[in-house]
Order: sequence, then C-alpha cells, then structure tokens
Amino acid sequence: MPAKILDGKLRANEIKRCLKKEIIRLRDSLGCVPQLAALQVGGETPFSVYVNSQKKVAEEVGIEYRLIKLSASCAEKDLIGNILSLNDDESISGIILQSPLPGRFDMVRLSSFISSDKDVEGINPENKGKLLLNSYKVVPPTASAVMELLAFSGEELKGREAVIIGHSGIVGKPLAMLLLDRLCTVTVCHIETYKRGLLAEHIKNAEVLVVSVGKPGLVKGEWIKEGAVVIDVGINMVNGKIVGDVEYDKALCRASHISPVPGGVGPLTTVILMRNCLELFKQQINAR
Amino acid sequence: MPAKILDGKLRANEIKRCLKKEIIRLRDSLGCVPQLAALQVGGETPFSVYVNSQKKVAEEVGIEYRLIKLSASCAEKDLIGNILSLNDDESISGIILQSPLPGRFDMVRLSSFISSDKDVEGINPENKGKLLLNSYKVVPPTASAVMELLAFSGEELKGREAVIIGHSGIVGKPLAMLLLDRLCTVTVCHIETYKRGLLAEHIKNAEVLVVSVGKPGLVKGEWIKEGAVVIDVGINMVNGKIVGDVEYDKALCRASHISPVPGGVGPLTTVILMRNCLELFKQQINAR
Repeated sequence: MPAKILDGKLRANEIKRCLKKEIIRLRDSLGCVPQLAALQVGGETPFSVYVNSQKKVAEEVGIEYRLIKLSASCAEKDLIGNILSLNDDESISGIILQSPLPGRFDMVRLSSFISSDKDVEGINPENKGKLLLNSYKVVPPTASAVMELLAFSGEELKGREAVIIGHSGIVGKPLAMLLLDRLCTVTVCHIETYKRGLLAEHIKNAEVLVVSVGKPGLVKGEWIKEGAVVIDVGINMVNGKIVGDVEYDKALCRASHISPVPGGVGPLTTVILMRNCLELFKQQINAR
Repeated sequence: MPAKILDGKLRANEIKRCLKKEIIRLRDSLGCVPQLAALQVGGETPFSVYVNSQKKVAEEVGIEYRLIKLSASCAEKDLIGNILSLNDDESISGIILQSPLPGRFDMVRLSSFISSDKDVEGINPENKGKLLLNSYKVVPPTASAVMELLAFSGEELKGREAVIIGHSGIVGKPLAMLLLDRLCTVTVCHIETYKRGLLAEHIKNAEVLVVSVGKPGLVKGEWIKEGAVVIDVGINMVNGKIVGDVEYDKALCRASHISPVPGGVGPLTTVILMRNCLELFKQQINAR
C-alpha cells in the first residue's frame, strides 16, 4: 500500500481557518489585530517570493503586514535602529528579518536585537535557549512545520527511533530538541555521516525520518524503513522542477506517511509564522 | 589491553595551574581578580559539599568567592532582588544559584534573571540558545567537563558515532549540540530507548559514549564497542561506595579510554566553573 501523503496545503488551510476565526474574535473584543513587521534589506531577489507569500497569507488570516525596505547599502546601525524602534512600537506584535541579508551582516548578531517577545521566527538566542529548556513560546517555523506534519500523521512519537539529516541551527538542532521532548530517541546525521558511508545504515533504522539538506536524491527510496514517517524539508530545482531530498516515488512504496515537495513542509511554514505572530500578540496583550 | 584512564583530577590540576597563573598576571596588571557570587537558599544539605569544594577551588586559583545565604523561607522576590543587585555589582564576575533550591522555586525562571554576562553555569535561556547557534561564551560545566575529557583522550571527534544516554537540559542536550559542532553523528537515548530494549543496540555502535543517567550498572560492559571512548557522568552511592552508570571493570577491557567514577568528570566540573568565571571576567573587562 502506498504511503499516505501528508498534504501540507490541506493542513495549512485548516490552520488558516482557525487563525482567521480567532483574529476576528480578538479584533471584535480588543479593537486591534496582530501586526507583523518585515525588514528587508536591498531590492527584489529570487527570495522575494517569500515576502509576497507572507503578505498574502497575512492578509488571508487578518494579520496586518508592514514591509519596511532598507537600501542595500544601509549601515548595520540603521538596521539595528529599525529593529529597536519596532521593539518599542506597541502596535507591532512580531518582527521578521528577511533572509538573505547582504553578506556583510551577521544574522545571529542581528537577531539578538529582536525582542524575544516579538521574535516571531524564534531565532534570537533567548528563544533558541528555551528549546533546550522545554519552555518555548514560539518555535522556528520550519521546525514547527515538521512537528505539525508529524502530528498530522497521527502516529505516536514516544519511544520512536527518529533520524534527522542536517544539523542546521534553524531546522536540525531545534527539531532534535523538540523530538527529544516528545521522547523519541533522536539521531542527527550530516555531511560527515555521509562521508563515512553510514547515512544509509542510520536511515534504515529510522521510524521517523526528517531530511533537511538541500541535495536532490540524497536519500534513496530503498533506504526507507517499511512503515516510516518521512518528512522532506529539502527544496531543490532539478530540470525546472521543484523536488525534495528524498527519492519520492520509491519512498512512497515503503513509508507509511510521506510529505511531498512541493506541497508538504513549504505551505505550512508561512502559516506557522502567522500563528507565531498571533501567539506573541496574545502574550503581549496579557502582559499589559 | 585495558583502556587508558581519563584522570579528571590530573587534568583538573593542569587547568588549575593555568588559571592560577593567568589570574596572578591579571591581578598584577589590573589590580583586581574575578569574584564569584554563590546564592544559597536554606541551610546545610548533603549538597553543601559542592559549596565547600567551590570555595576551596576558588581559593586555590585566586578567585574571590562570596557565599550569600538566604533563609529557607525567603520569598522569590528576595532571591530575584539579590540576583539583580549582583548583576549590577561591577565587582562580581559570575553568579551561581546553588542547587537544589527549595521545591517552590522554578530554577529555569530564576536563572533567566542572571545577566547572561555573569551566568557562569551557562544556564540562562540566552546562553543555552547560543549553544544552538554555536556562538557561546561559556558552556554548562558538566557538559564542558565531558568535552574536556574527550579532548584529553586525544581521539579525533569528527565523523565519529557519538551516543549520549540521558537528555537533560544541563548535560545531554547541551552536549548533543557541542558534539554536533564537532561533527560527530549524535544519538541521544533515554528512558524510552531503554523501555523499548534498544539501548544496547545503540551503545554497541557508539565510538564515543557519554552516560549521564544516575543508575548504577545501567550500561553493561559487554555492550561497549571495542575501542570506544567512554565518559561516565553518573554519580551513585552503592553500599557506601561511589560508582558511575557504567560497569567499569568490564568496560575497562573493551574501551580505548574511560573516565572513572569518582575521579573523572567530577573533579573537572568545579574547575571549569572557575574557568568560566575567569572567561566572563575577561569579557567584562574588555567591554568596559
């Protein structure tokens, strides 16, 4: 039996409906709605598609979206000044620094200036630390989207053998913390695992497999354990077609559940960004 | 050939000598030395042995140690008030909240009041987050002691299969981040791994094994992979004798390096606390 498809678009639409309803309710009772501020340095890039998608989803759910464009040549202190005044602005619920920043900027340093109460991407050190402490307000959207799809599969996580391929600070590492909190046994693999030829061996034991590398065809279909839940975070362009990191067609015959690319993790990420924004908005209202 | 013993006392003495030398040099050039403030709530407990050991090691290396005792019945706001005034006190380089606090206190919440510049145990959320971001100033002492013993073994870490038993926020999780940064493939096991009977299987593949559970004899000697580096963080009292979590005598015949209990991780932890304190002192001086 082929795997059940974890349809990210479907789940994203369900979440959008809930968000919309809740934001209407809050608007009616409080007279205000969440507002997400996005700081973009420089002009249009291939990544502007993300900005447009944020704008569109924000509109759909009723979140105000304020895009602030700084010139490509702006100084670090200008960018920090903008972050600080957004921190102070009570009408702003969440702040996002659009990637990629020009190469001279240090994203980790800059993210530490975003108030942890408005850090909608969960990227500043304090919010990252709360992942280790199991006391987080918001989770980085991509890691959160993976957890959302795992929940959507309906499979129990406790005690499962989970394998994460990729150890980035925004996906692999946060996800390792989240899956440990759900009491999976967690293995994190990466380029050195691959170089030693041990990747297949780890994947063959994975009951839950999350792949976030950005290398098409990295995970062979025959490596997938029968009945595994497979989440593919990779987004790669091959011959004008978007594909993930997993050999999808072959994996489909072995997994119990699999997320497609496109249409899996991707559509959820922006919606979860909005959910984080609403979450922070509510916390700010409660703290007033 | 039996394993080489990773003698924590020996390494601790080497580090102490370096610290002492550097602190004398700084005192002569700056006219001041680091000062560590320890907040203790309530009277003597079996854990007072740690306070005494901190005091002794601080004295040995030339760090001033200020113990502040609050009554067992003190309010949370008094404790927070003490933390905040130590944050503001320029003569204080590092702050430590002695464990255990009376049960009504929330350690995670309280640790977030310690300035991240004075958080000598690396436990507040911002410093924990820097572990995910690979941009830390100081590392929680026990996790750091494990890394120190691994370095002391002289074994290359890159590409190694590392297995951590125990997923606590002060040892297992930080250590997972540190070993990933050293490009180990990292597996974190815990009680659910054990319950499913998969612990032995993971341990049999471990080239680097760190055990931090607190259950004597948990890791059977015959599970140890030939040539593995084994670090035992467990401290258990059995028939009046202190033992670790690993069947030491049997493991000794299989491992290439092993840390004993007592005399492995333990003696290093307090010394690394002092090294963290010196590190923070130097950063504070540079920032003035």
